[in-house]
Amino acid sequence: MSILKIDMSEKKVVKETFPKDKIVGGRAMIDYLLTEYGSPTAHPLSPEAPFIAAPGLLAGTSAPQSGRMSFGGKSPLTGGIKEANSGGTAGDKLGRLGVRAIMVQGKSDQWQTLKINAEGAILEPADDIVGMENYAACEKLRARYGEKISVIIIGPAGEMKLANSTVAVTDPEDRPARHAGRGGVGAIMGSKGLKAIVVDSTGVPSRKAADPDAFKQAVKTAVQTIQDNPLREVFNQLGTNVCIDADGDRGSLPTRNHRHGAFEKRKGLCSNTMIELNNARGGSMGNACMPGCVVKCSPIFHDADGNHLTSALEYETVAMLGANLGIDDLDPVARMDRRCDELGLDTIEVGCAIGVLNDAGLFEFGDAAKAESYIEEIAQGTPMGRIIGSGVTQTAKVFGIDRIPAVKGQGIPAHSARSLKGWGVTYATSPQGADHTAGVVEDDPLNPVGQVDRSRMAQISTAALDATGLCMFTFLAGTPEIIASMVAALYGVPWTAADFEELGKEMLRQERAFNINAGIAPQADGLPDWMRTEPLPPTGAVFDVTQEEIDHLFNF
Amino acid sequence: MSILKIDMSEKKVVKETFPKDKIVGGRAMIDYLLTEYGSPTAHPLSPEAPFIAAPGLLAGTSAPQSGRMSFGGKSPLTGGIKEANSGGTAGDKLGRLGVRAIMVQGKSDQWQTLKINAEGAILEPADDIVGMENYAACEKLRARYGEKISVIIIGPAGEMKLANSTVAVTDPEDRPARHAGRGGVGAIMGSKGLKAIVVDSTGVPSRKAADPDAFKQAVKTAVQTIQDNPLREVFNQLGTNVCIDADGDRGSLPTRNHRHGAFEKRKGLCSNTMIELNNARGGSMGNACMPGCVVKCSPIFHDADGNHLTSALEYETVAMLGANLGIDDLDPVARMDRRCDELGLDTIEVGCAIGVLNDAGLFEFGDAAKAESYIEEIAQGTPMGRIIGSGVTQTAKVFGIDRIPAVKGQGIPAHSARSLKGWGVTYATSPQGADHTAGVVEDDPLNPVGQVDRSRMAQISTAALDATGLCMFTFLAGTPEIIASMVAALYGVPWTAADFEELGKEMLRQERAFNINAGIAPQADGLPDWMRTEPLPPTGAVFDVTQEEIDHLFNF
Repeated sequence: MSILKIDMSEKKVVKETFPKDKIVGGRAMIDYLLTEYGSPTAHPLSPEAPFIAAPGLLAGTSAPQSGRMSFGGKSPLTGGIKEANSGGTAGDKLGRLGVRAIMVQGKSDQWQTLKINAEGAILEPADDIVGMENYAACEKLRARYGEKISVIIIGPAGEMKLANSTVAVTDPEDRPARHAGRGGVGAIMGSKGLKAIVVDSTGVPSRKAADPDAFKQAVKTAVQTIQDNPLREVFNQLGTNVCIDADGDRGSLPTRNHRHGAFEKRKGLCSNTMIELNNARGGSMGNACMPGCVVKCSPIFHDADGNHLTSALEYETVAMLGANLGIDDLDPVARMDRRCDELGLDTIEVGCAIGVLNDAGLFEFGDAAKAESYIEEIAQGTPMGRIIGSGVTQTAKVFGIDRIPAVKGQGIPAHSARSLKGWGVTYATSPQGADHTAGVVEDDPLNPVGQVDRSRMAQISTAALDATGLCMFTFLAGTPEIIASMVAALYGVPWTAADFEELGKEMLRQERAFNINAGIAPQADGLPDWMRTEPLPPTGAVFDVTQEEIDHLFNF
Repeated sequence: MSILKIDMSEKKVVKETFPKDKIVGGRAMIDYLLTEYGSPTAHPLSPEAPFIAAPGLLAGTSAPQSGRMSFGGKSPLTGGIKEANSGGTAGDKLGRLGVRAIMVQGKSDQWQTLKINAEGAILEPADDIVGMENYAACEKLRARYGEKISVIIIGPAGEMKLANSTVAVTDPEDRPARHAGRGGVGAIMGSKGLKAIVVDSTGVPSRKAADPDAFKQAVKTAVQTIQDNPLREVFNQLGTNVCIDADGDRGSLPTRNHRHGAFEKRKGLCSNTMIELNNARGGSMGNACMPGCVVKCSPIFHDADGNHLTSALEYETVAMLGANLGIDDLDPVARMDRRCDELGLDTIEVGCAIGVLNDAGLFEFGDAAKAESYIEEIAQGTPMGRIIGSGVTQTAKVFGIDRIPAVKGQGIPAHSARSLKGWGVTYATSPQGADHTAGVVEDDPLNPVGQVDRSRMAQISTAALDATGLCMFTFLAGTPEIIASMVAALYGVPWTAADFEELGKEMLRQERAFNINAGIAPQADGLPDWMRTEPLPPTGAVFDVTQEEIDHLFNF
C-alpha cells in the first residue's frame, strides 16, 4: 500500500509506502494527512495547502458500494477543514492499485494531468483539456488514455478557483456526473495546477483480504442485510428524489430561499414525475454510481427528444435548484444539473446562492430562465458569475443581504433544520459546515430534546463510515459491527465496532482542532440567528435546540 | 449626560440618563454597549445588530483635538467587533449637548435622518438625500437644517451595505471629508435605514468641568506640551503625508500590491510635491479637522484649475491609492480620494482591493484611469463594483487569489508589517483587524525582539486614548498622566494613568471576548503566512516575530 506524494512545483511523484495495517482511509486519511502536513493558517489556495484524494479503507474489494472517494484540504469556502466524497469508479481502481492516498502540494504553472496505473504515476501536460467542460474533457482523456480509465477532474469552476467548485468522478457510464461537491474542493485541486487524474487498473485484480474466508462471509452478510432492508427498494425505485415528497410532507423541503418547508408545486419535481418522464423518454431509475452497489439509487434523465441530459439527478439537486428557487419543472432543473456537472459546481451551493438573490431583487422565484442564465454567467466567468460561483455567503456579502442560509460559510442543504432539529444540530456543529451527509438524525424531528446526543452519535458514525469508502446507504446494513468485520477481515487486524466508533471520534477531534487552529472558534457552532426567530411554514417550527446543549456536542 | 436609544423599526427615540461619572466614551462606549446589548452571533447587518456612535470622554470641552467620534458595531468586513473613529465637528457638538452615545437598533424601511439639538432628538424622512453622494447631500441638509449643523452621513456605498463603507463627518469647512473608514461601519448604519445624523448645538456652551481650575490647568499643560513637541510642526507643515518619504526611506511604503517597500517614483506623491501644487493652485497644508486642534495636520487640495478637489488627503490614502497601485501622480490620487469621500469608501481598503486585481490580470500598476474606473463601478453598483466595494478579502476570494494583504478580513494599511515589525504585531493581533491606528510601534523596526511587548503597551494606550476622543497625535503630549488629569478634572473623579491603562485593558478584553463569541478564535491572530516567507524589498525583511510570542499578546 502506498501514498503518492505529488510535488506540482517540481513535477515530481514520490511513492511512499503506507503501513498496511494502519486503519486510516477516505475522510480519515484527509484528516490524518492534514494534521500531519497541512497548515491551518495557510491560504486554502496557496502552494503550502495540500490537496488530498483518498479512496476508502474497503476500496478495490467486493465490499458492497465501497468505492466512494474522499477529496479534501483547507476549504476556500469555509476556511476550515474540508472533506467531500463522491461515488464513481475511481475509488475501486485506486484500491486495486494499492493507492491509499494522493497528496498534492506546490503549484504547477502549466496545467497537468496525473496518470496512475499499475506501472506507477506520472504527470503529463493537460493543455489538450484546459478550459474544457467536464463531459468533453473526459471524452478527450479517454481518447488519449484508453476507454478503461476512470477520470477525476475539475471543470472551469475549479480552474477559476471558485469557492464553489467540485471534483467530478466518472460513473459506470463514463460520465463525469458524480461530484465531491461541497466546500470548493475543485478550487483546491485547481490551485495546484492539476486538471485531472486518470486511473487505469486494467488487469489488476481486486484486493486480497488478509482473511479471505472471513472477508467473504462479512461481505455476504453486509449484502444480504442491505438487500433485506425495505428502504433499499424505495431508493432503488424512486431514487433519493423520494425525499421531495417525504420532506415536503413533513415540512422540511427548502422552498423559495428557505422561507417555506413544503413546495405547493412539488408534484412537478417528485419521483413519480421523474419516472413518468423516464418512461416516456428512455431515462431510467435504479442505476449504480459505482461498481458493486446493491442499492442502485441513481437516475439517468433524458430530455424531451429522448437524448441523455443528465445523470445523478439527486434529491439535493432537485430541491435546491427546484423548490428552493420556486421552480416546479424537472426539465430546467435537469438542465441546470447538467450545466453544474459540466462546469464543476455544487448544486446545493448554487441553489442557495441564487435563492438569496431574491432578497436583493435580482431573482424572481420560478424564473427558471434567469436561474439558468446565472449559471451561464458562472461559465463565462463574469463578475456576477464569479460572485454566485463563490457561494451563498459571498453572494450575500457582496449584495448586503443579512439573511444567509449557511453555517461556517457553507450553504444549508435540503433537509430544513427548523423542521428537522437533529439535522439542524449536525449543520450547526459539523466541522465541515452545513452538510447533509455529516450526520443524519431522523428521530422525533420537531422536538428539540435529545437531538444533540443523537447528532453526536450520528456524526461519529458517519465520520467513521466516510473512512471506509462505503456509501451512506450502507447503514441500511444496520450496525457498525458488520462494517467493522469487513475491515478486520480485509486488513487482518482485530477491529470492532468500538474501534469504528473511536476512529470517528478521533476524526472529529482532528477536524475540530484544524478549524480552531485556522481561526474558527468553537463559538462558530450554530445555525444562523434568524432560524431561531423566523418560523418555517407549514410546521411553524423555529430552531430551538439550546445553544448551551449545542456547545456540549464535542464533549466526548 | 444621556444615551439616545433609537428604535428604527418603531421610529422611536428614547433618551436615557447615563451615569455622569462612568468613565466610558468613544471606543470604550462601543465596547461597553456591544457587550451589554450586542449579539456576537447576529449578522452584522441584521436588525438585531446595533449601530453605535459615541463622542469621546472629553468631547465638548476645551481639551485639545478632543472631538474624534467613534462609530461601531459588528463589522460586515471582519465579522468581529468594530470601532472606527473620525475627526470632524460633530463630536464637539454632541459633547456640548451631553450626548454620550447614540445606539441605533432595528431597521426602518424608509430612509431616515436623525436630528439632534438642544431640544432633543427626532427621526425625519431622508427621502430628499437618499442615493445622493456625500458633498451634495450635506449641502442639502444644511439648506434644510441650517448652516450651523454638523453632519454624520453615509454615502451610496453605505446605502448599498458594502462591507467597505464609511461614516463621514463634516469638517470645519462643512465638507464630508473626515471618515470613520475601516470595517464597513457605513453599512452597519445603512442597514438600520439611517442615512444621516445632523447635530446642532447652536447656543450651547462647552461643557463645565467638575473642577474648572484643575481642568483649565490640565488643558493648558496638554496644549503646551503638544506645542513644544518638534513633531507638531512637522505634521502641521508637511501633513501625515510626510510618511511617503519617511516610510519610503525605511522600506515600509506599500508599493504595487505590497510587493515593495519603497516606491521609486514616490517624488510625485510626497509632501513637498503636495506643497508645491498647493502653492501654485491655492490649496493649503495645516488645516484643523476639528475645533480645538493644536496640531492641524490636514491638507486641502485643489485641482489644476484652482478649484477645491479634496480635503484630508492623508498619508494612508496617498500610499494606498498611489504607491500601492504604482501611481505616481497626486492628481488622480486626489480625485480618487474625493470619489471615495463622495461614495463613503475607505481608501485603504479600496487601495488593497484594486491592488490584488493585479494578481488576477485585471489591473496594471500605474494605470490611474483604470483605478478610477473601478471606483466608478462601485458608484454604479455593478457586480464588479460591488466586489471591490466588499473589500480586499472578498475581491481576492471571488477571483481566486491566494496572496491577500489582510488580517481578519481587513486590508493591511500603509505601514508595511515586514519592515515595521512592531506595527506588524499590532496588525496581527488587534481585535479590529489590520489597523494603522490600533497601536503604533516605531522602535527598532527590523528587529523582531520585544515587539510583542511594545505592541501590547501601544494597543492598551491607544484603546484608552480612543475612549477620550483625543486625536492620536495627542500622544505628542507625552505620557498618559496629562490625559488622565484632564479626564479626572472634567468628571470630578480620581482618575490616574493607572486607570487609563486599566480602561485600555478592559476594552481589549471586551473586544476579544466579542470576537471569540462571534466565532473568531484567538488563533486568527496572525499576519498572512506569505509575509513570513516573501521578503519585502528594499529591506529584504520577512515578518519573523514568532507566533508563540504573538499568542501571548493578550496575557495581561
